[in-house]
Amino acid sequence: LTDMPSYATNMRLKFPILALTLEAVTIVLYALLVVYDTGDAHGHDGSHAESNTTHSSSPMTLYPMFQDVHVMIFIGFGFLMTFLKRYGFSSVGINLLLAAFGLQWGLLLQNIWHMHDGKIRVSIEKMINADFSTATVLISFGAVLGKTSPVQLLIMTLLEITIFCINEHLVVEVLNVSDVGASMTIHAFGAYFGLAVAGVLYRPGLRNGHENEVSVYHSDLFAMIGTVYLWMFWPSFNSAIAEPGDPQLRAVINTYFSLAACALAAYATSSLVEKKGKLDMVHIQNATLAGGVAVGTCADMDIQPFGAMAIGITAGVISTVGFKFLTPILASKLGIQDTCGVHNLHGMPGILGGLAGILAAALGKKAGYMATNGFNISVLVYPSVSPGYQACGLASSLGFALVGGLITGLIMKIPFWGQPPDQNCFDDSIFWEVPEEEEENEERLTHGDYSKTKTEA
Amino acid sequence: LTDMPSYATNMRLKFPILALTLEAVTIVLYALLVVYDTGDAHGHDGSHAESNTTHSSSPMTLYPMFQDVHVMIFIGFGFLMTFLKRYGFSSVGINLLLAAFGLQWGLLLQNIWHMHDGKIRVSIEKMINADFSTATVLISFGAVLGKTSPVQLLIMTLLEITIFCINEHLVVEVLNVSDVGASMTIHAFGAYFGLAVAGVLYRPGLRNGHENEVSVYHSDLFAMIGTVYLWMFWPSFNSAIAEPGDPQLRAVINTYFSLAACALAAYATSSLVEKKGKLDMVHIQNATLAGGVAVGTCADMDIQPFGAMAIGITAGVISTVGFKFLTPILASKLGIQDTCGVHNLHGMPGILGGLAGILAAALGKKAGYMATNGFNISVLVYPSVSPGYQACGLASSLGFALVGGLITGLIMKIPFWGQPPDQNCFDDSIFWEVPEEEEENEERLTHGDYSKTKTEA
Amino acid sequence: LTDMPSYATNMRLKFPILALTLEAVTIVLYALLVVYDTGDAHGHDGSHAESNTTHSSSPMTLYPMFQDVHVMIFIGFGFLMTFLKRYGFSSVGINLLLAAFGLQWGLLLQNIWHMHDGKIRVSIEKMINADFSTATVLISFGAVLGKTSPVQLLIMTLLEITIFCINEHLVVEVLNVSDVGASMTIHAFGAYFGLAVAGVLYRPGLRNGHENEVSVYHSDLFAMIGTVYLWMFWPSFNSAIAEPGDPQLRAVINTYFSLAACALAAYATSSLVEKKGKLDMVHIQNATLAGGVAVGTCADMDIQPFGAMAIGITAGVISTVGFKFLTPILASKLGIQDTCGVHNLHGMPGILGGLAGILAAALGKKAGYMATNGFNISVLVYPSVSPGYQACGLASSLGFALVGGLITGLIMKIPFWGQPPDQNCFDDSIFWEVPEEEEENEERLTHGDYSKTKTEA
Repeated sequence: LTDMPSYATNMRLKFPILALTLEAVTIVLYALLVVYDTGDAHGHDGSHAESNTTHSSSPMTLYPMFQDVHVMIFIGFGFLMTFLKRYGFSSVGINLLLAAFGLQWGLLLQNIWHMHDGKIRVSIEKMINADFSTATVLISFGAVLGKTSPVQLLIMTLLEITIFCINEHLVVEVLNVSDVGASMTIHAFGAYFGLAVAGVLYRPGLRNGHENEVSVYHSDLFAMIGTVYLWMFWPSFNSAIAEPGDPQLRAVINTYFSLAACALAAYATSSLVEKKGKLDMVHIQNATLAGGVAVGTCADMDIQPFGAMAIGITAGVISTVGFKFLTPILASKLGIQDTCGVHNLHGMPGILGGLAGILAAALGKKAGYMATNGFNISVLVYPSVSPGYQACGLASSLGFALVGGLITGLIMKIPFWGQPPDQNCFDDSIFWEVPEEEEENEERLTHGDYSKTKTEA
Repeated sequence: LTDMPSYATNMRLKFPILALTLEAVTIVLYALLVVYDTGDAHGHDGSHAESNTTHSSSPMTLYPMFQDVHVMIFIGFGFLMTFLKRYGFSSVGINLLLAAFGLQWGLLLQNIWHMHDGKIRVSIEKMINADFSTATVLISFGAVLGKTSPVQLLIMTLLEITIFCINEHLVVEVLNVSDVGASMTIHAFGAYFGLAVAGVLYRPGLRNGHENEVSVYHSDLFAMIGTVYLWMFWPSFNSAIAEPGDPQLRAVINTYFSLAACALAAYATSSLVEKKGKLDMVHIQNATLAGGVAVGTCADMDIQPFGAMAIGITAGVISTVGFKFLTPILASKLGIQDTCGVHNLHGMPGILGGLAGILAAALGKKAGYMATNGFNISVLVYPSVSPGYQACGLASSLGFALVGGLITGLIMKIPFWGQPPDQNCFDDSIFWEVPEEEEENEERLTHGDYSKTKTEA
Repeated sequence: LTDMPSYATNMRLKFPILALTLEAVTIVLYALLVVYDTGDAHGHDGSHAESNTTHSSSPMTLYPMFQDVHVMIFIGFGFLMTFLKRYGFSSVGINLLLAAFGLQWGLLLQNIWHMHDGKIRVSIEKMINADFSTATVLISFGAVLGKTSPVQLLIMTLLEITIFCINEHLVVEVLNVSDVGASMTIHAFGAYFGLAVAGVLYRPGLRNGHENEVSVYHSDLFAMIGTVYLWMFWPSFNSAIAEPGDPQLRAVINTYFSLAACALAAYATSSLVEKKGKLDMVHIQNATLAGGVAVGTCADMDIQPFGAMAIGITAGVISTVGFKFLTPILASKLGIQDTCGVHNLHGMPGILGGLAGILAAALGKKAGYMATNGFNISVLVYPSVSPGYQACGLASSLGFALVGGLITGLIMKIPFWGQPPDQNCFDDSIFWEVPEEEEENEERLTHGDYSKTKTEA
């Protein structure tokens, strides 16, 4: 390692100052605005009755689902990105950093729109939504994985979550769009935001790939920990904020079957597109999850299990084919270097989910459900979901993502933020103290040029 | 790698065609038969009241337990089998494939016996049972691990789950046998089914072992992820479908203590049977779990914590001794090559569980419990459990397993399914794209002396 | 490996005899004292109504939180200690052994103080507390990691849990101290107990470190599995035994935000104290968790989210600085070799938690809550928490820890228990069968005949 890059990318002051400043600002805002959603915290404004409808009887009802989502965010996304042979510390570690800040920031911005007497009341449901908001950043992180500094990524977190909250408010609250599993507002948004950033940060020097942009046997196994947890807990992701009762049960069942069918489609397609019919870990680690993304928007709708399975199969095929054929083209033709292939896992399946939602809305699949109103009386609610508004929700999410990603990318491009030089990409050792002996056989590891690269370049 | 075997075992058409055909058939059947178990799905046939007794008030009551079982199936079984140094991709990956198809198939066959007006109503409880049905296949997978192709294993999944559902229906519904933790219907069944298949697929060429049928340091650690998750969540496995209230609480407590006692017995026995008193990872990874298997049948019975602990200790000793002395004999004398030693973890402990259930039934340990009848009135139910019928349940499970396994093994033996040649056994690279370099640079990993110390000394 | 040490430390008789004896004694005591906390187990002594107040309506209400705590104990603590390159088997494996015995022993000793008609009634809440009692041992295990034999550690488990239960009873029951997240009674106690033992077992031969007291790249990744699980589930640890309703919700929210803020502080400080501003895995693996420890005592109090965040930041900074500057001094000046740096993760943050509790008590932050009394009538309970008693609770925990640790250390120092010689420290191979080829080099791996095969053939 020459000293030059390690000086240019020295984080010793930049990073601590930025991180502590962000945290300090956050605490001040929390001191002013954030309280518990406890009984004693409520005035006589009926807000408690309202929150009752969301977390039914006990304030802890949603807690097990919150923990499932929590595991998806910190273990699922974190380990899914550890497939690179020398980038595991950053994948799990920076994932934790960004999500830890992101959930604090997201909880603030998601709720300033509707405060009760000037306060944000924290409940388990709001914590779930805060975790959701970090998912957008972790998806975008996948697109730029290995090519950015912690400082750049903290800036991206700050900006992306801010933009996400604006779009989410517009789509869900103003346009009243139905997107219970957030195929549009989280997955499509996060993917295209990240792809826009990756486009701005295009590196011609990595045109022919990078010796470290490969996996090793055990790094692929670590990544499977992330894959399997995301696969298992996705029903919680898609149903956590659904209406209690039948809609929530439908969201669980639809996601369970969509993922099961998607897995078979991904395995079959992976074997079909490889020369000797072998399975490719890149496809298994990612495409098996596309069914969870694609069924998100209409997860709580009355599409029946076989409908969910049809969506899952479609997503599994599209995603696998995308990894095999589309990702290399995006890199070579459009100059978009998508490290984890988020376009295949979150981008296209997210759009598919949006389209499925439009169709389901047109077919009137959003069923009525019983809810408890402010006077604790059960009433049958008929949600009005229109195909047109659903389409607007998709368009809005894509628009905010692309424009927001371009602007964010330009800001991240400022040299001062310590972006690593090409030769130090996909290598933990530029921002982490790494055990020496692996360092030593680093150069031996460069004999590993035959290993497949994540993007199949 | 010579081309010969990789051609003989080329999966490019066989595998995708089989996988997609199975999924297509499944979807058609789901479109015809499967709906949500939602309030609006019910006619006036009282089926809702009936399902109430199983998932009490809310349809989501069992969801946390479902997720625990889900983790056992996909992380527990998947990683437990990653102990082999070059077979981790298949262990976790094929485990996911088989379980993803198996749960769809199992849910169908478990419920065609009792449909309401021609429909199967999916509830969380039915999803738990569907996960259970896949466990039988994953246990059998352990017996033939490293010696079969994905095509063979999909065929085994189809046949084994079908046979399992017949035996389960006969034992639980017809004979009214008590087997809440499924020691007999899942563990003993899955083990002896797999051993029968392994016997049919006997490979003389592996008589003296195989260079890849060994673990490496980190593969043993990956396997411990599976072990610990199975150990922790086994109380959910044994209690998930127990009657709500006291029986379910007993099932949790008995399994918790049986596993704790079993762990000490397994560690003690492992040290006792090794030359220098050292612990053997094979025993720790597997025998510590035998207590969960063995307490399964009488988990919800009134055997008291000390009774559960006695069962656990017995299972831990039997299982460890089995790994040390019995497995080599099975391979050399009976020609049954049991890769994971499922006979020691699921076979003998499953039979022990069945015998314990017979004894507990004879001693009248199946206590009464409160249940809500069709008119939503609480009534005290006295289950009639007879030692004779319990014995029939064990015999039936073993009989279906051995006969079903022999037939399935003969079908799997057809050369067309692409069974790997001896020299390619226990090696992911025949069915997976595997990163090249790790094999090469393994030796350089030895100059590891300058690594930073944890205490920064 | 010379034969000499492996003979001196041969566990073949010592270990099995001790383990089986402890288990046998435990079973006898369980047969005499332990029953289920089921409705039918209750006489007319109102004990059921009493237990109702703890596990509200259903006996399974706390089960999901129990499983979160269970994961922290067995996966969290177990994998957190796998950072050492050659000590992963012991970290996960001995962690499982000690916790499996500890929970049986802890459940007995925690409840002999208040039995109903001579019986201990096991409920989910008592199982959570039993898991908690093992945490003290696992914390102390971290201080002596790599330098003790399984026999020594079983003895430590027996003694430490006994002493812990006495102190816990005194502090929580007699002095009525508030310590819902156990910053004092578990974390500070476990840390200083372990440090006292480490002081007694001081090894001058390890003054200059040990070649195996280092991590490798993948061992650091395994450790992150433990870190992330502890980080995610800590809200369950701090709220599991809180009063249902608002106090429990506050405990979850405070811990969630304390950990989030702590993570940013730990990352920032880690970069700040390293030469080139690089992040250090030791800090990330440990200091990010200090916020969960420090907020424990006042987790259920009305300190508001920003208060919890302030505690978290303080803990993150103190802990990271401790790893960087204090741990080396403790080793060189005080002769306390703290392998995992438990002083920085549990010791100082535990004291910080105790002090925060004193302050919160002085400010009257322990709010009232609704509880159901013996006659099932809801009453508003005003807990009386005094700063003075809180201080006594901290002093008592530290006193019992240091004195108990010194005595236990002296008992553990008896040569007969097979403490490993210096050169065999931090090496699994002295007490475990370890696959050969990773230890030695690749040639063995290419014909891995020396490695033991799974089937012991």
